[in-house]
Amino acid sequence: MSQSPATPYLRIDVARLGANIERTAARAAAAGVSLRPHAKTHKSPDIARLQLEAGAIGLTVATIGEAEVFAEHGVEDLFIAYPLWLSDDAARRLRDLAGRADLAIGVDSVGAAQRTGAALEGTGVAVLVEVDSGQHRTGVAPGDAGVVAAAAAEAGLPVRGVFTFPGHGYSPELMGSAADDEAAALAAAVASFRDVGLEPDVVSGGSTPTLTQTHTDALTEIRPGVYLFGDAQQWELGAMPPDTIALTCRATVVSHAGGRLVLDSGSKVLGADRAPYATGGGRLLDHPAARIVQLSEHHAVVDLAGETLPPLGSEVAVVPNHVCAAVNLADTLWADDGTALVSWPVAARGRNG
Amino acid sequence: MSQSPATPYLRIDVARLGANIERTAARAAAAGVSLRPHAKTHKSPDIARLQLEAGAIGLTVATIGEAEVFAEHGVEDLFIAYPLWLSDDAARRLRDLAGRADLAIGVDSVGAAQRTGAALEGTGVAVLVEVDSGQHRTGVAPGDAGVVAAAAAEAGLPVRGVFTFPGHGYSPELMGSAADDEAAALAAAVASFRDVGLEPDVVSGGSTPTLTQTHTDALTEIRPGVYLFGDAQQWELGAMPPDTIALTCRATVVSHAGGRLVLDSGSKVLGADRAPYATGGGRLLDHPAARIVQLSEHHAVVDLAGETLPPLGSEVAVVPNHVCAAVNLADTLWADDGTALVSWPVAARGRNG
Repeated sequence: MSQSPATPYLRIDVARLGANIERTAARAAAAGVSLRPHAKTHKSPDIARLQLEAGAIGLTVATIGEAEVFAEHGVEDLFIAYPLWLSDDAARRLRDLAGRADLAIGVDSVGAAQRTGAALEGTGVAVLVEVDSGQHRTGVAPGDAGVVAAAAAEAGLPVRGVFTFPGHGYSPELMGSAADDEAAALAAAVASFRDVGLEPDVVSGGSTPTLTQTHTDALTEIRPGVYLFGDAQQWELGAMPPDTIALTCRATVVSHAGGRLVLDSGSKVLGADRAPYATGGGRLLDHPAARIVQLSEHHAVVDLAGETLPPLGSEVAVVPNHVCAAVNLADTLWADDGTALVSWPVAARGRNG
Repeated sequence: MSQSPATPYLRIDVARLGANIERTAARAAAAGVSLRPHAKTHKSPDIARLQLEAGAIGLTVATIGEAEVFAEHGVEDLFIAYPLWLSDDAARRLRDLAGRADLAIGVDSVGAAQRTGAALEGTGVAVLVEVDSGQHRTGVAPGDAGVVAAAAAEAGLPVRGVFTFPGHGYSPELMGSAADDEAAALAAAVASFRDVGLEPDVVSGGSTPTLTQTHTDALTEIRPGVYLFGDAQQWELGAMPPDTIALTCRATVVSHAGGRLVLDSGSKVLGADRAPYATGGGRLLDHPAARIVQLSEHHAVVDLAGETLPPLGSEVAVVPNHVCAAVNLADTLWADDGTALVSWPVAARGRNG
């Protein structure tokens, strides 16, 4: 094994990563839906390649910057699942991208559809209409999807279909019903398309916590992101057991102050996400009862639930609450295949615009 | 004005930045204490230069990686205010640094003092003993400071003094008493040094929310970080009014879904910090009644408290809850001096180890 980098750093268990990628690809294939993983989770061309080799039809991304990075690395089918508002510069960048990849973007208003048409008509960039299935973030009401789709078609854009994100499924109480809500919203959106004489080719949804509960008969495509790594959120939601978690932050015990364990993995490496259902600021993979009870920029204070403290200087594996946030703080992921540690650049890190 | 970068991006009001730096430098000078700003907030050599020109005696940093970056940029006096546990590689890096800068590090146990001595005796690297003044994170009890100091001296290290961080002052209820706690803890630590025949040259504390309440007669040095930018936390604590906030995230209105304002400034640019006293996920500088009520990776949903929604495509200035987290997500800060936008690299971004 090559020398480890200085802690704190993010380490990937390559065997678990591969198993997670294969399992979800097999599930999608068995259900007859396309898999278009959300690459905002990993931002890594090395990992995108593994997903595409396992059968993903393309990638989902959140920003133009992410699309640019993956196009530069040869990904030929990209969906920016976000209701972009096109500045002149954003439109120019999308026109450039359209020459290099099959490209689709989101819209969630008539105004955005008209503006997008004015900027991108004739470039081949397609749109999908975003609908709100219960998260109440972006997206039109499902019954209004047809109106937006018609405006996009009128503006000269290829209208590929409809998408949603059932993000309210990130809740122990709502995981099941969110999948139901998603199916109902997408069905209503499809009906709304038909009301204006349009037929969606793509009906897209999915998320990691709802993965096993998605009504695949109501969708043509799923876009989970976190499924390949797992994190403490998925562990606590019961969506992914700890033995599937493929990314941890390796941290050093720096202090026993106050009789507690203090690690050098603070929020600047783990992220500060803390969902309402989270039981702490992160978990320890090999100490299921432990919780990070105090998280600051460079310190994680751990309650070990009565276990003997590991000695000063020892290394532990921390599971971040939300892996997308942790990856977006790192320039490098360290891939451990059991024989060597290889650096995988987080090439799209910080590409937020 | 040069063309603005794509939103979301971090923008600095250079006039306000300069005023914040000058005001705090003047206050420290008037009180007769040294100012050693914590550079983890900005991670920027350009800003470090402004602080040093205004009279700062050196910088505080949190990690060896940050110290390396600032040393490469010519900063000659660095204190790593963290209880480092020295791996062989960390010891090698510190020995390298000791040849380029006056260097001190933290210790908070007899074990760490002994290990540090074994690794760094004779290099000139000094230590300060960290004491806990009420945050209950790292640091020994004040009365035990002398024991750790004696162990460090016995191990052959120059013992420069004692430090604390009154981080429990990040609370509306405790801002005043935290400064009292800090003074009491440092006085007890000094007494504990004297019990073992040592005299601390440096007695170091301070934080932005306690800045005006610090008992400067009990300290020789203060180490605030956030004071130069401000953020929504300082605004809500009443420590810095909004007209002193020098860093905002420029964001675009991308959606009016559900009759609310949705911005492209998500947690991947603002950070997800949300202190118990925070009233939302961030504030809008020009709309004091507004709150970010839902924050995900690429979306900030804003409740505008009844104000008319700014149109799609318009730009607004968002104040992150915790500016240190926001800066650590950016590769570049855009400095606006009223005539041009200049990029300042966040050179120490991600240098967590």
